[in-house]
Amino acid sequence: MRKILVFVVFAALFVHQPLSAQKTITGFSEKTSAAQKQREQKFDALLSAERIGQTIKDLSSAPHHVGSPGGKVVADKILTKFKSYGWDAKIETYQVLFPSPKTRVLEMLSPTVYKALLKEPALKEDATSGQEDQQLPTYNAWSADGDVTGDLVFVNYGLPGDYEILASLGIDVKGKIVIAKYGRSWRGIKPKVAQEHGALGCIIYSDPKDDGYYQGEVYPKGAFKNEYGVQRGSIMDMVIYPGDPLTPGIGATENAKRLDRLEAPNLLKIPVLPISYHDAQPLLEALEGPVAPADWRGALPFTYHIGPGKTKVHLKVDFDWKLRPAYDVIATIKGSQYPDEWVIRGNHHDGWVNGANDPLSGMASELEEAKAIGELVKTGWKPKRTLVYCAWDAEEPGLIGSTEWLEDHIKELQQKAVVYINTDASARGFLSVEGSHALETLVTEISKEVEDPQTKVTVFERAKAENTVSASSAKAKKEAMDKKMFEVGAMGSGSDYSSFIQHAGIPSLNIGFGGEDAGGEYHSIYDSYDDYTRFKDPGFVYGIALSKTAGRAALRMADAEALPFDFRSLYKTVDGYVKDLMNQADQMRESTAVENEVIRSNSYALANDPKKNIKAPLPKEEVPYLDFSPLQNALKEFKKTTDDFAQLQDKFKKDSLDHAAMNKVLYMAEQRLLSESGLPRRDWYKHTLYAPGFYTGYGVKTIPGVREAIEQRNWKEAQEQIHIVADAILNLSAYLEHSFGAPPPMPQD
Amino acid sequence: MRKILVFVVFAALFVHQPLSAQKTITGFSEKTSAAQKQREQKFDALLSAERIGQTIKDLSSAPHHVGSPGGKVVADKILTKFKSYGWDAKIETYQVLFPSPKTRVLEMLSPTVYKALLKEPALKEDATSGQEDQQLPTYNAWSADGDVTGDLVFVNYGLPGDYEILASLGIDVKGKIVIAKYGRSWRGIKPKVAQEHGALGCIIYSDPKDDGYYQGEVYPKGAFKNEYGVQRGSIMDMVIYPGDPLTPGIGATENAKRLDRLEAPNLLKIPVLPISYHDAQPLLEALEGPVAPADWRGALPFTYHIGPGKTKVHLKVDFDWKLRPAYDVIATIKGSQYPDEWVIRGNHHDGWVNGANDPLSGMASELEEAKAIGELVKTGWKPKRTLVYCAWDAEEPGLIGSTEWLEDHIKELQQKAVVYINTDASARGFLSVEGSHALETLVTEISKEVEDPQTKVTVFERAKAENTVSASSAKAKKEAMDKKMFEVGAMGSGSDYSSFIQHAGIPSLNIGFGGEDAGGEYHSIYDSYDDYTRFKDPGFVYGIALSKTAGRAALRMADAEALPFDFRSLYKTVDGYVKDLMNQADQMRESTAVENEVIRSNSYALANDPKKNIKAPLPKEEVPYLDFSPLQNALKEFKKTTDDFAQLQDKFKKDSLDHAAMNKVLYMAEQRLLSESGLPRRDWYKHTLYAPGFYTGYGVKTIPGVREAIEQRNWKEAQEQIHIVADAILNLSAYLEHSFGAPPPMPQD
Repeated sequence: MRKILVFVVFAALFVHQPLSAQKTITGFSEKTSAAQKQREQKFDALLSAERIGQTIKDLSSAPHHVGSPGGKVVADKILTKFKSYGWDAKIETYQVLFPSPKTRVLEMLSPTVYKALLKEPALKEDATSGQEDQQLPTYNAWSADGDVTGDLVFVNYGLPGDYEILASLGIDVKGKIVIAKYGRSWRGIKPKVAQEHGALGCIIYSDPKDDGYYQGEVYPKGAFKNEYGVQRGSIMDMVIYPGDPLTPGIGATENAKRLDRLEAPNLLKIPVLPISYHDAQPLLEALEGPVAPADWRGALPFTYHIGPGKTKVHLKVDFDWKLRPAYDVIATIKGSQYPDEWVIRGNHHDGWVNGANDPLSGMASELEEAKAIGELVKTGWKPKRTLVYCAWDAEEPGLIGSTEWLEDHIKELQQKAVVYINTDASARGFLSVEGSHALETLVTEISKEVEDPQTKVTVFERAKAENTVSASSAKAKKEAMDKKMFEVGAMGSGSDYSSFIQHAGIPSLNIGFGGEDAGGEYHSIYDSYDDYTRFKDPGFVYGIALSKTAGRAALRMADAEALPFDFRSLYKTVDGYVKDLMNQADQMRESTAVENEVIRSNSYALANDPKKNIKAPLPKEEVPYLDFSPLQNALKEFKKTTDDFAQLQDKFKKDSLDHAAMNKVLYMAEQRLLSESGLPRRDWYKHTLYAPGFYTGYGVKTIPGVREAIEQRNWKEAQEQIHIVADAILNLSAYLEHSFGAPPPMPQD
Repeated sequence: MRKILVFVVFAALFVHQPLSAQKTITGFSEKTSAAQKQREQKFDALLSAERIGQTIKDLSSAPHHVGSPGGKVVADKILTKFKSYGWDAKIETYQVLFPSPKTRVLEMLSPTVYKALLKEPALKEDATSGQEDQQLPTYNAWSADGDVTGDLVFVNYGLPGDYEILASLGIDVKGKIVIAKYGRSWRGIKPKVAQEHGALGCIIYSDPKDDGYYQGEVYPKGAFKNEYGVQRGSIMDMVIYPGDPLTPGIGATENAKRLDRLEAPNLLKIPVLPISYHDAQPLLEALEGPVAPADWRGALPFTYHIGPGKTKVHLKVDFDWKLRPAYDVIATIKGSQYPDEWVIRGNHHDGWVNGANDPLSGMASELEEAKAIGELVKTGWKPKRTLVYCAWDAEEPGLIGSTEWLEDHIKELQQKAVVYINTDASARGFLSVEGSHALETLVTEISKEVEDPQTKVTVFERAKAENTVSASSAKAKKEAMDKKMFEVGAMGSGSDYSSFIQHAGIPSLNIGFGGEDAGGEYHSIYDSYDDYTRFKDPGFVYGIALSKTAGRAALRMADAEALPFDFRSLYKTVDGYVKDLMNQADQMRESTAVENEVIRSNSYALANDPKKNIKAPLPKEEVPYLDFSPLQNALKEFKKTTDDFAQLQDKFKKDSLDHAAMNKVLYMAEQRLLSESGLPRRDWYKHTLYAPGFYTGYGVKTIPGVREAIEQRNWKEAQEQIHIVADAILNLSAYLEHSFGAPPPMPQD
């Protein structure tokens, strides 16, 4: 009976209602819902597209990478803005390692001599492209210092599967320099896999097929990468841990205990350099050896070969390896009712160069929200919970500003953080949201209220239309068309939410628009205001849509009487993941068995072209049956827990007063999904459901402990991880069940 | 009882035996089988790779297209060879229309001026490439005369689906000139579809992505098409009828009644010209308008646009439209026992230019067989049935030599022709065979005896290995690995078998090797002896394998006591086609219903990028349920008939003497599958099971009447055609059943 009694207090508010007839916002009563909607109307009316444009223009007027004078200027401007909007604002400074290049040389020594330009030219059509004295040159941060000479080998995208093909051709990259295309994985995976295979160095280039004239007109005529454009970027091995490489797990405060740089486990040992397709063309064209397989070939006008041959290159890079200050701007409006419950909203402010799109499009929307909220506060309203609006520094080199702040404040945050809402580069197109699946109802309701600037339907309807049209089968189209919920994606990595969800278990959302804004400006000097206004979000109308969406998420989480976590969505999602894993294991078992039979039948040797000398693959270990029952039983239990909520919904319709205790249970629930030991070989990652893939980088692996063990054919570890994930789900289930009948337990550290 | 009695005479020989333990050849007794195998050993020993090489070198020493002096020389040389081998040989001459160009002009008038070269240069690495005075220039035979100027539009491969995309972009080619890529269909489909859409003219070019440096090193460094290479070829609308356009259905004898050329229904009305990618590049690069969709883009180094814009081109071509003599060389060795049963073997001898690979690789193998057979005859052996070895002229412009001969002799051939065995261009790689499925046992047994020159396993094993390795799923690999039969493909068009099987219902086979011989010489001046010996079949060892395979087929069909037709293979194949058709109709019904729902939901309009102004598709007529039961019932009946054979096999093991009557029933059986009315809108095509696709050209459509009606969404016609095909199958079934108990009926014309 007590169980039910406790539940009276919030069941009516908590549970998701049929959306078509929705009058009230989940988590609000009828009355407070009406007030909230009114406030959101006011909020919308306070937003100005023109001002978003001015903010982007102002903050992108000079290069502003971490540690640069321009970076300090941007942090100070943001601080000033927050204050002028009426927020309590300060800068928290961390001392973080950030290498800036001293030497960059790439030259081909034979069969002909070519010295790479390594430079993006200024363009008259792009006002800020000529600020050479303030620009970071083209490089990959966290490349090792190195001076190497060797034969060149083309390794496609540089992923593990590409090296399997190289092996079948009898090509070994040991002692050689590899050249890989950008794309298909986070860039840091390419040198990591090259290093694993014994390469001396790694060159990464943008092929015009993926990022250049093959895609569309090049800049400045069109949006795509011109022949000199180079993608800068971090190659830190972020899938081990992000943040300052010298201070894993702790804040990089001035006196923090630091690792020796050469011992940092997330830094590579080989030199790496990104180049343009102008610089790549003579190198690739000089290669001999086998013709590259069809899906390796790019859009340069010659036959792609793999090498090695007579193509010898010399790569020399070194860096200053300085500690530099990272300025996190933290602005707060204290909650009137629950000041110790924090709704955190963040976007980074550092760019690789001028960064108009990445990160300033998202940053400008966040600032616009902050201004509107400040105006609302001036009218007398105060949020129930504390709003914490953040502008992170040093995201580009490895999510450093946000990670150090999270690590520095983790105990407090695991007590107080209700949610972390992230944005980053955003532009014209379709809404996409990744994050904690228990927040799917919140996201769905918001997406059904915000209007798409181009089509004037809701952003929900537009995203649904896109999913429907682009679905690959009639069945998938039908399913997409019938979707009532906005599908929240799982979080990998690539922006500042990573430490919040994956290290600390704080419920998170990452919100953005895009899909109609393709281009080649990413991490180049051409990510400028001129480019942005032509190709990304002319009129800044999607900047407004982003403010409306992320702002609503913050405002509703701040003022909800019952926090709108719905674990039924989480159950459904995880149940899908587990079915997918079981299916994957079954398919692997079948395909391994057949493939081994094909190999033993000598079919590869017989089918191969004898002139090409391709090696037949070796048989692989057969796939055993894994015991998935711990996961299945845990999910059965978890389903029961989440169904209890739904049953209570029907029985209790009345409102009540104090949801505080239950809210605290809810927002700390996701921490139950952390495993103390973390993922194998990367214990910084503690979430059992989401992590960036060890060999994909940004790309998510769901239930990563199990999934990656299966992919790596480590059956013992897969079985162990099944138990660990099942325990985490049972832990969450028990925690929720327990809280029905007793005061919520305090989280343990 | 009589039924069984009649069957005694051939059941033991007829039926396919387990191949692993196979001692006797199907159709032969134990004793005659041993003799046959011995004779085949002798036959093999008489073949000479060196001589095949000499033949290719000799016959490719000068250009030899139809009507040329070189063509006459080649025909005479072949005649002389047959005679010298001891065959009765003669030339049958037809007077056929063949247009040769007088004017060829292609120029871009704006935005810049470019005059196309329209010329392949001589290369010092290619000895015959400089014979300019004897070469046909680069052109498409059967282009209309024309002098047109218009805006240029890029139409991808120029297929119906491409025009749907153009329509969605609001682009109409009416009054414009289109430029299409070679590939994805027979070339003649491209101008036909362009004409259907109102285009003034059609340019066809070879994109380096499909046929150039993207695929591998270009000629003469490698095998692929260099920037100046042009694919000549016929654009006759052969899917209406092949052969001389002026004499459909009758032989083009000197005094035959001829159509007015401008009334010939298989000739197009617009000018057409093929060009190199060197000539295409400035035209394509000048195009404006929408960026081409991703799968339209080729490998030239710029952004592909569709146009139209300021790109105006002028195309002028005219032709001499002369009747020219086509010389079919016909060589015979009269059968000792059944002189009026003809085993026909053919290959064409005309080339577009020097034609070392196409057609001389196959021609040389046929001549090598003829020589070896001549030697066998000198030892005293004579084939039981008459061997007719043919060398066709004028295949390249439209299968003309073979078609006119067939049409000229159709009554006699429908009485006497036991089988037609075709070859054409052939080279290094894997055996492939298309043809009458009742001959699958014959093909399988032969493929398990001929050795692959490179791997020394049987050509059956090697083809199976390739099918296994390249299968796309574990299930498909397993199936490929477990295959006991060599899978005979269905015949579309593209070589001289077409009239035999599709017009006259004569059982046919088309045999070739390939798959490791890719290159860009096809229909260019570089299809030369130099190219052939480097890239196609160095050492001419696959020439020998082809002689062994096609020669065995001819020898076994000539000497079998019971002709090895096995209609159970036909039943299985047709049953698969019908299941596939039913499945296709079901999928179309489902996808149309869903797609219409998506369209009505306005999803296209909402998902589209408003800046691109793409039109949403219109709803399509819903797919009704068709009544497939006539086909299902016919197949049920047909299965019973073919199973009767298998049952008899177990009961009667004894040999008998006179199979003559039953053999005649068997070899004329395929004619029962013809429909008198022919296919809709192209009544020359009479076979109900196989035809070239109306919009694919070479590519086969099985059960074409039904399949194409469904594809064209003509439900009424689909239902009518179901009845016609079912009647044909019942006709064959009744004919076979009837022949169990009565003398075989004579075929009716």
